[in-house]
Amino acid sequence: MATPKVEPRTLSGFRDYLPDVMLPRQRMLERVAAVFESFGFAPLSTPALEYAECLLGKYGDEGDKLLYRFRDNGDRDVALRYDLTVPLARLMGMNRDLPKPFKRYHIAPVWRAERPGRGRFREFTQCDVDIVGADSLMADAECIAVGASVLRALGVERFEIRVNNRKLLTAMLDMVRVEGEAALGVLRTIDKLPKIGEAATRELLRTENALDDAAVDTVFRFLALDARSPGTLEAFFEGHATGLLGASELRAVLQAVAEQGFGGAVAVDLSIARGLDYYNGTIYETFVGGLESIGSVMSGGRYDSLLGLYTGEAMPAVGISLGVDRLFSGLQELGLVEAQASVTQALVTVFDDATRPHSYAIANTLRAAGVSAEVFLGAGKLKKQFTYADRKQIPWAVVAGPDELARGEVTLKHLKTGEQHTLPVDALAARIRGA
Amino acid sequence: MATPKVEPRTLSGFRDYLPDVMLPRQRMLERVAAVFESFGFAPLSTPALEYAECLLGKYGDEGDKLLYRFRDNGDRDVALRYDLTVPLARLMGMNRDLPKPFKRYHIAPVWRAERPGRGRFREFTQCDVDIVGADSLMADAECIAVGASVLRALGVERFEIRVNNRKLLTAMLDMVRVEGEAALGVLRTIDKLPKIGEAATRELLRTENALDDAAVDTVFRFLALDARSPGTLEAFFEGHATGLLGASELRAVLQAVAEQGFGGAVAVDLSIARGLDYYNGTIYETFVGGLESIGSVMSGGRYDSLLGLYTGEAMPAVGISLGVDRLFSGLQELGLVEAQASVTQALVTVFDDATRPHSYAIANTLRAAGVSAEVFLGAGKLKKQFTYADRKQIPWAVVAGPDELARGEVTLKHLKTGEQHTLPVDALAARIRGA
Repeated sequence: MATPKVEPRTLSGFRDYLPDVMLPRQRMLERVAAVFESFGFAPLSTPALEYAECLLGKYGDEGDKLLYRFRDNGDRDVALRYDLTVPLARLMGMNRDLPKPFKRYHIAPVWRAERPGRGRFREFTQCDVDIVGADSLMADAECIAVGASVLRALGVERFEIRVNNRKLLTAMLDMVRVEGEAALGVLRTIDKLPKIGEAATRELLRTENALDDAAVDTVFRFLALDARSPGTLEAFFEGHATGLLGASELRAVLQAVAEQGFGGAVAVDLSIARGLDYYNGTIYETFVGGLESIGSVMSGGRYDSLLGLYTGEAMPAVGISLGVDRLFSGLQELGLVEAQASVTQALVTVFDDATRPHSYAIANTLRAAGVSAEVFLGAGKLKKQFTYADRKQIPWAVVAGPDELARGEVTLKHLKTGEQHTLPVDALAARIRGA
Repeated sequence: MATPKVEPRTLSGFRDYLPDVMLPRQRMLERVAAVFESFGFAPLSTPALEYAECLLGKYGDEGDKLLYRFRDNGDRDVALRYDLTVPLARLMGMNRDLPKPFKRYHIAPVWRAERPGRGRFREFTQCDVDIVGADSLMADAECIAVGASVLRALGVERFEIRVNNRKLLTAMLDMVRVEGEAALGVLRTIDKLPKIGEAATRELLRTENALDDAAVDTVFRFLALDARSPGTLEAFFEGHATGLLGASELRAVLQAVAEQGFGGAVAVDLSIARGLDYYNGTIYETFVGGLESIGSVMSGGRYDSLLGLYTGEAMPAVGISLGVDRLFSGLQELGLVEAQASVTQALVTVFDDATRPHSYAIANTLRAAGVSAEVFLGAGKLKKQFTYADRKQIPWAVVAGPDELARGEVTLKHLKTGEQHTLPVDALAARIRGA
């Protein structure tokens, strides 16, 4: 081949996952998927590439600009998916007769042409569960419960799912006479409150969102409400139908979450706004105790009108999305990620060509017993073979030389401690697994 | 939102996988990955998008044309990955100090702008294992053994891995004085032999590849050799170093495969050529008994010079790639795919708001015992709840009305047979699992 040497590099904002990261990350996602399935969510998959028109206009102008959009070889206007929600909406539009409520999970990469930065990538994994076709607030509660179950399954003990209802925010904004695009602007400002504090938020509301002082006061009077105390929200929204509906929805969701045993994991936070404009009911974000600064690890809410854009008929939906990267680094900080540099539990060494069939047989026996084993790809000096195992962080080496084999035995060596034992081949797997 | 209704559609050559396909497909890939890991292959992941220059020139002119290549928002020349081998080569070039032999598997989609057709898609899943940095022919044999183990783990009883060595073909072509691009052309013609037969292949070799009659005869004399019989290849290639090396490599690989207990799964087929130009040693394709017409379900070989393009130093490599779609449809034809339309094993019905906490508790108990359970999202008429379970093909329904609950019992109904039993809540999971 005449091709010249190419400088090997990845695009900025894109990452390789080498086995030492990929292994624990994959184990984490397998556990997450198992929890999803235990609640009856089924996996599905959609293409990476969609017609651009299917994606445009769903993420706001900002989002549209971040699409990886191009003309394909057939001059079609296409784009890489930006999230997993809009493709779900598109899929529901194409498969009207799927039994509802339809419960699915989807774990897959998405692409956004953001400026790369600390913890911000152009390709990242989304991990979503959604329930389509259920009006019942039990569905909202189920998304919260499955999220809480995931965190518990991953060993996270302290976390808080902060719940709000978009109707409360809409009603409050209606009281200060802000609606449409301007309302979304105010919600985005409110979303910054935990990061920038009250003074800066008040300032932004006055300057960027053009609220007067009375309106800003109303916003903060709302945010300071003790939402869980009976009657408080109802008093604030007296006579305002949307506000009262939001209050009753919020209480119903909290009730159903508590009935599932997750009451202690949930708090009401009226400042949770969620940037995306398609949410219209319950919304939530999740913070891990002691790691609040990494941001929400799991968010979502109810979005009843998005799917109608594709299906032509109202189709309620609610979902929750795990921030896989954030969650994984959170678990690392909490010491909940078991380091595993190698999948191989035992290296079976090879003495020479004559004994090689025995090495192969030993490896087959180990694999059949559920122990991952590799046979050294070569033969000769044991020291070289041990060095390979060491560098790969393989815990055990099996030595099967002619003397041992003549006795039907092998030597099992623990590479870190150097301890070694001679034992029958049959006993090998149990010994390694029991270690 | 003012966005108008969008026609929901997918791009030609792209597919959604709904749960009824996704579930058995995912189970299949999980089994495949488990076999890979039992041999010590570790998972890794690379970006979907690469610098175009990293991919160009590796797949031939044909391949380059099939790249999804575009300018990103930063005007970078980028392309979606075309396979998983070139990204591996790029990764090895960036991570020189990974311990070798480096054994990885990678299961992920790739994109090729082919004309879509029966069984040919623009987005499809590749599933590769590769060993980088091992000269030993034991590595070639290991790839064959892991492939055979995968098929056995999936329940495929009759299959044949057809092995050849590129050096034999190169030497044979050298004997008829064909080399370089012309040699690749002849190999591509030979590759068609099983599909188009001897007469048509001879014709193509004369017309398309401009071989004279004597050369065509040599090609067919080579193809007719009984390669396994001792001395046959050696006699044909007497005095030709490359041919003799190919013969000895082939014999060594067959030997090491047999030592691993897979001798019966392997045949020599001198007409296996593999289209890609980077193979330089062992090559193989795999056919399932009775399903030869679907083509090879698993192919690969040794490619010792590809990685050097990125690493700047010789880096031997050998791998095998599963055709996920072909294999899955093959398994379906053989009746080896268990249909599973629903992940949910039991629907817990809801009588009313007062009993709902009990329904939630029952579902939690089932999940903790490893039974996937969902709670009906609503309450009221049991008939409606059973209809939902029926449509979703959920096998069991749990009825927990006030009377049953007062006795600490529930009724378990099998939806297909209509049979039902009353039993204590504690006994529920065991009953469902034992069914």
